[in-house]
Amino acid sequence: MTAARFITLEGGEGAGKSTQLRALAAALRARGLEVVETREPGGSPGAEAIRDLVLTGSADRWSPRAEALLFAAARTDHVERTIRPALQRGAWVVSDRFLDSSRAYQGMGELTDEDILTLHRIGSGGFMPDRTFVLTLPDAEAESRAHIRDGGDSDRIGGRDSAFHHRVTQMFSRFAAMEGDRVRAIDASGDAQAVTARLLEGLDDLLP
Amino acid sequence: MTAARFITLEGGEGAGKSTQLRALAAALRARGLEVVETREPGGSPGAEAIRDLVLTGSADRWSPRAEALLFAAARTDHVERTIRPALQRGAWVVSDRFLDSSRAYQGMGELTDEDILTLHRIGSGGFMPDRTFVLTLPDAEAESRAHIRDGGDSDRIGGRDSAFHHRVTQMFSRFAAMEGDRVRAIDASGDAQAVTARLLEGLDDLLP
Ligand SMILES: Nc1ncnc2c1ncn2[C@@H]1O[C@H](COP(=O)(O)OP(=O)(O)OP(=O)(O)O)[C@@H](O)[C@H]1O
Ligand SMILES: Nc1ncnc2c1ncn2[C@@H]1O[C@H](COP(=O)(O)OP(=O)(O)OP(=O)(O)O)[C@@H](O)[C@H]1O
Ligand SMILES: [Mg+2]
Ligand SMILES: [Mg+2]
Repeated sequence: MTAARFITLEGGEGAGKSTQLRALAAALRARGLEVVETREPGGSPGAEAIRDLVLTGSADRWSPRAEALLFAAARTDHVERTIRPALQRGAWVVSDRFLDSSRAYQGMGELTDEDILTLHRIGSGGFMPDRTFVLTLPDAEAESRAHIRDGGDSDRIGGRDSAFHHRVTQMFSRFAAMEGDRVRAIDASGDAQAVTARLLEGLDDLLP
Repeated sequence: MTAARFITLEGGEGAGKSTQLRALAAALRARGLEVVETREPGGSPGAEAIRDLVLTGSADRWSPRAEALLFAAARTDHVERTIRPALQRGAWVVSDRFLDSSRAYQGMGELTDEDILTLHRIGSGGFMPDRTFVLTLPDAEAESRAHIRDGGDSDRIGGRDSAFHHRVTQMFSRFAAMEGDRVRAIDASGDAQAVTARLLEGLDDLLP
């Protein structure tokens, strides 16, 4: 048996992360692997309770710094209670968002990328995914997908303007450019099956 | 008008922090100062919501690392929403516990003191009290006071054993020894009025 792997899906709103998470998990199961599907913020009972605090209330309920600490606390719980135990028993873990979302959303304003990585070191010993896929879509296409999905409703973070979401997308591209071994940009346009095939191709070196 | 000051009271359970907070605030008000009384964890609406998460549930609900991040998130909110605004309008602020409690309770096991200080730097720019009083009592006397107060009931953290509480007390003494300009150990035995008089003496250089 090859080692169990921890895979994360990242990208802006509406890029297709949740859709691809289900498809990728199914494809891995079809190869006989046990797969745990999870998400952030959340993914364990403690982290889901923190998620409720972070995503509800008015837009200014939390400052960027308080928010970054809450996300780091949730991630610590998620890694300890869900991700590590699954990997230890040999299951693959696929997560809808993880650390890179904090780096992209919180690490480009008042906080630096280094701050976010420091919080992750203190919280989770710097635990990293084996592979991260950044689903990339032209902004207009992403907006229309997100809009179809939720009819224009959104939470505290999704509700921000399109310049904000454009900066997020740029941050993700930067990670793919700078940490190419772990982070791969994947073209998320076209039909869902084609995107899943690209993801599986990007796991070639890790699959049994 | 002299500058408004931020004063914190620290010490183990039952040392008399809450009792002295009220007495000290009253004494400062009697001198014509506006005084805001606050506490940690909590002290602002966001921080109180985090407090509920941290102090309820089973003893192992949160790991030490997740707990440290939650306390840092709460403190960030408390500083931004309650403490800094009060100081800015000229009010003195007196807090029942603050950063040194995190250093004493979380920074002596899996996390280092440096980790706790790093979280505080990222969350609150390293914002420090102008003066911190550590109320010190012989362990037996502290236990009997805490027991009288709550009849033996306790929360997730108060419920730990006496060796734990003894280590906490030692950590506080260390801060007083190493950061003597800010942190003063105060003998908390004897009657409450005598203790309040010692606190006021310890503010001599800061009072108008
Ligand atoms: N390849 C695709 N082609 C067309 N539509 C798609 C495709 N993938 C997903 N969608 C649709 O786009 C919308 C957004 O997809 P999805 O919810 O998977 O995105 P997401 O990245 O998880 O978004 P969010 O970050 O907001 O959760 C959904 O309505 C989904 O059905
Ligand atoms: N100087 C004193 N002499 C005798 N009893 C006291 C004195 N100060 C406080 N007490 C009593 O001791 C108990 C604990 O005091 P208090 O609640 O102020 O401690 P505390 O440090 O705030 O404890 P905790 O950390 O558990 O909140 C209370 O019942 C209080 O009335
Ligand atoms: Mg989604
Ligand atoms: Mg008290």
